[in-house]
Amino acid sequence: MYDTTPDGREGWLTLLPREVFATYGVDRVNSGRAGSDVGAINAVRLGHAPASALPALNRYSSESAWVAFRWGPRYGEAYPGTQFPIAAAERYYRQTITTYRDPDETAKNVAAEIVLLDETGPTTLLVWSSAAPLGFLTAAARPAAVKAIVAIEPAGFGYAMVPDDALPALSRVPLLIVMGDHAAPETAAAREFARRLGAHGGAVTVDALPEAGITGNGHTLMLERNNREILARILAWLRRTLYP
Amino acid sequence: MYDTTPDGREGWLTLLPREVFATYGVDRVNSGRAGSDVGAINAVRLGHAPASALPALNRYSSESAWVAFRWGPRYGEAYPGTQFPIAAAERYYRQTITTYRDPDETAKNVAAEIVLLDETGPTTLLVWSSAAPLGFLTAAARPAAVKAIVAIEPAGFGYAMVPDDALPALSRVPLLIVMGDHAAPETAAAREFARRLGAHGGAVTVDALPEAGITGNGHTLMLERNNREILARILAWLRRTLYP
Repeated sequence: MYDTTPDGREGWLTLLPREVFATYGVDRVNSGRAGSDVGAINAVRLGHAPASALPALNRYSSESAWVAFRWGPRYGEAYPGTQFPIAAAERYYRQTITTYRDPDETAKNVAAEIVLLDETGPTTLLVWSSAAPLGFLTAAARPAAVKAIVAIEPAGFGYAMVPDDALPALSRVPLLIVMGDHAAPETAAAREFARRLGAHGGAVTVDALPEAGITGNGHTLMLERNNREILARILAWLRRTLYP
Repeated sequence: MYDTTPDGREGWLTLLPREVFATYGVDRVNSGRAGSDVGAINAVRLGHAPASALPALNRYSSESAWVAFRWGPRYGEAYPGTQFPIAAAERYYRQTITTYRDPDETAKNVAAEIVLLDETGPTTLLVWSSAAPLGFLTAAARPAAVKAIVAIEPAGFGYAMVPDDALPALSRVPLLIVMGDHAAPETAAAREFARRLGAHGGAVTVDALPEAGITGNGHTLMLERNNREILARILAWLRRTLYP
C-alpha cells in the first residue's frame, strides 16, 4: 500500500523519509514479508487436523476490492472524479496480499508491534483499514511509546475491538483519523469513536477530506492521485500536534 | 534475503543501486509481497475440496534452516569461522517467508518473470537457491532479454529442472554461479551443470569462494558478514562480462 503506487508514482514509504522521518514499513504478522504460519495448513494436509482447523485467509477479489475500496459503485465503473488511478487497477491487484483473519491474530499483532516499539523507541503509528484497531490496542498497551496515531480509513468494525477499559490509556495518545469520500457511515463511526475517547480526555481529529473540499478519495487514499496532498495534511497535523 | 541483514547491515537490495544498477526486488509468485493464492486453501476450508488439494507450503524451521543453510553442523552449533551473523539468527528467522512448492509453481514463476522482463527490458537476473532454476528457465525462454544470470548457491535439485532442450538457448546467457563453504557436493553439481552448458558453447563461471580463500560462507551468503566483499566479486564479473 505504501510502496510505489500502481501507476508508478512515489508512495508514502519513500516520501516520509524525504520529510526526515525515520520510517519502518511493517507487514503485519502472517502477511507479506512477515511470513506466514503454515503449521495449521500443513497439519490439515497431512491428515493431523480437520479442514475446520484451517486459518481464515482473506484476499480481496478484483470485484470486491473495487466496490469495498470505493473506487466506484460497481466493478468496472468508477465514481466521477475518483482519485484512484483506475487505469492501473490491474497493477494494484497484484500488490494485494493475503491476511490471516482469525480473532487470535489480533493478539499476535499487538504483541509483535510491542516488541518492535521496544526496539525503535517512541514513534508515530500510521495504520490503515483493519490495521487501525491493531494500532489502537498497541497504543493502549504502551501509551508512552506511541507519540501519535495516524489512522487512515479505519475499518468500521475495528472500533468495537477496542474495549472500554483500553480507552483511558489510548486517550493519552493524539489520534488523527483521515476519511475519504463516499464514506458517510464510516465517518460517523470515526466521530463516535472520537466521542468515546473524548470522554476520557482524548484529543482526536477526524479529517473528513470531502468536508475540506478534497473529493474523490476512496479507501486506498495513500496511493491515490492526490496522495502527496493528503500526506502534506497529515504532516501538518503531526507537526502541529507533536512539535507545537 | 536482500534487505537489511539480520544484524542490521545494508543488504544487496540497496547496495546494488549505490553501484548505479537499477534494481528490482522480486518476490516470487505466491510468496512475500507478491501475495498468495488462497483459493485452494479456502476451498478445502469450505468443504469444496479434499485436504489433499491443499498446496505444498514450505517454510524452514529454525532447526532445519541452521543445518541446511550450513551455518553449522547441528542446530545451535556454528562452524568455526562462520560468516553468518550467528547472534542475529533469531532475527533471520523472522525474515523468512513461505513458498508454494508444487511443480506447477515453476511455470507460474517463469510466466510472471517473462511478463516483468517484457516491461523492464534486458536485465541481469540475480537468483538464489530454489529460485535459480526459475531464472535458468526464464532465460531459456527469453535469452535475448537476459544479459546475464548471477546464481547464488543454486539448489542442487534445480539443475535437473532444466531440460536438455533448454540448454541451447540458456547457453547464450553468461552465467555466474557463486558457492559458499562446506558445499563440495553442491559445487560439484554446479560444475556438472557448467559442463552441460559448455557443450552448447555456454560460458559459465563457478566461483567456489573457499577456493579463492574466502571461507566460512553458508547458503545465505548475500547477508553474511562479508556480503560486501562477495558483491564486489560479482560486480567485477559482471563488468568484465557485460562491459569488457
